[in-house]
Amino acid sequence: MKKKVTNSSARKRYSILVSNDDGIDAPGIYALVQELKKIAQVTVVAPDKQQSAVGHAITMNYPLRVKEYSKNGNFWGYAVQGTPADCVKIAVRALLKRKPDLIVSGINHGSNTAISVIYSGTVSAATEGVVLGIPSIAISLTTYKPSPDFSYAAQIARKLSLLVLKNGLPRRTLLNVNVPAIPRKQIKGIRITQQGKSVWNDVFDRRCDPGGIDYYWLTGDLENIDKDLKYDEAAVRNGYVSITPIHYDLTDYAMYEELQSWDINSLK
Amino acid sequence: MKKKVTNSSARKRYSILVSNDDGIDAPGIYALVQELKKIAQVTVVAPDKQQSAVGHAITMNYPLRVKEYSKNGNFWGYAVQGTPADCVKIAVRALLKRKPDLIVSGINHGSNTAISVIYSGTVSAATEGVVLGIPSIAISLTTYKPSPDFSYAAQIARKLSLLVLKNGLPRRTLLNVNVPAIPRKQIKGIRITQQGKSVWNDVFDRRCDPGGIDYYWLTGDLENIDKDLKYDEAAVRNGYVSITPIHYDLTDYAMYEELQSWDINSLK
Repeated sequence: MKKKVTNSSARKRYSILVSNDDGIDAPGIYALVQELKKIAQVTVVAPDKQQSAVGHAITMNYPLRVKEYSKNGNFWGYAVQGTPADCVKIAVRALLKRKPDLIVSGINHGSNTAISVIYSGTVSAATEGVVLGIPSIAISLTTYKPSPDFSYAAQIARKLSLLVLKNGLPRRTLLNVNVPAIPRKQIKGIRITQQGKSVWNDVFDRRCDPGGIDYYWLTGDLENIDKDLKYDEAAVRNGYVSITPIHYDLTDYAMYEELQSWDINSLK
Repeated sequence: MKKKVTNSSARKRYSILVSNDDGIDAPGIYALVQELKKIAQVTVVAPDKQQSAVGHAITMNYPLRVKEYSKNGNFWGYAVQGTPADCVKIAVRALLKRKPDLIVSGINHGSNTAISVIYSGTVSAATEGVVLGIPSIAISLTTYKPSPDFSYAAQIARKLSLLVLKNGLPRRTLLNVNVPAIPRKQIKGIRITQQGKSVWNDVFDRRCDPGGIDYYWLTGDLENIDKDLKYDEAAVRNGYVSITPIHYDLTDYAMYEELQSWDINSLK
């Protein structure tokens, strides 16, 4: 890197690291940065290309390359040949001079609710942030239509960032935000939610290539079994912005107790 | 697929799907299959190459290809050009005639404890199993030395599989097993554990390629802060086989309650 790139005008109080999984050239991250620049010095470190559904992948078997990137004269950042989690790791451990006050990942083009949370690159960037001890937010706009309007979701991100900077978050917890892609006046409100139980009905579309070899495309849709508005997917389907506090302690404590009664020593 | 490949001799009672993240040609999956064949009909669907640290990545932007694979006349399976989660999805949704009774992922060459659980492809294959409603086990041998002896870990996998087939597991819970790479008589016992809090001290080794361009290698080591034997990493370091029940409900319920007191409606 020859010089430090920045999205700050001057004398900004907070520093925010922005990443995503749709790639540094995605409109969602551009809209997010324009809003966050109003309240903070913003540094962008994001994948150089689309990385959806990469989960919490990290790159260990290949080296990472980093390139400066700019757009429209008002968006600068580092494009990384890697995953969202790679971007946050390399930003905090190697590229930034000091730890950012906050990490915001997004704005994802598509929802990250229910089971999708575990596949989400957007969420994994924020998870990596809290692993590194930095309060983090993941934000998604719940539509797959091309060219959606990210402006309301970006405003939510800015306001929630200020709340988090003021209130803090527990050491290992991030906020996963999903914003319905509907006109602002149709938004019914903001709900604190739980990760829903809905899963994907995976369908593998089997085809045959011109050489006669089979291949499979993964497709399918979300089997929405969550009707209660306390769940993320139900909240957004009903016109609410959903905010779910999530963490990465995967221990099932109820089963931890129950397993003590199993005849575990017979395994030895 | 022209014919159904199988690792069964005959009239086996249970069906077990085996996957991993080290790739279908890894010695750990070979050792696992030889043991599990003693108690069940075993089908192997595993990545065609090494997929460590891919987290819960799934492949949606590329088609998946599947090839039959065999080794030594006593190991057959399907090699998938995809991630561990892809393998389990395509096995259950497209390749297998009926749902397996159990999924076992491993034996991973290297530990999957503490923070590594969220990066682990081995664990993600088992997680995908429980997402699909199938009891699942992930198993790892905690050494990075070349050519370790997988036989004791394979026996643990067989015995634990029988216990799980007998007792069942809760709907969304899997068992994450880590076996110390020490002689069997030095194993102190089996412990039910919680996911530890240790994290990686990431170091990015910055280098310059022959063309004068910087690149970065991710390296570092686990900062072991878990001393209590109730944690996975502490248990294996002290000579115990560790069994951690984990799930994928990432909701932080304590923070869910606390967030209700935040001025959330100011965001709207």
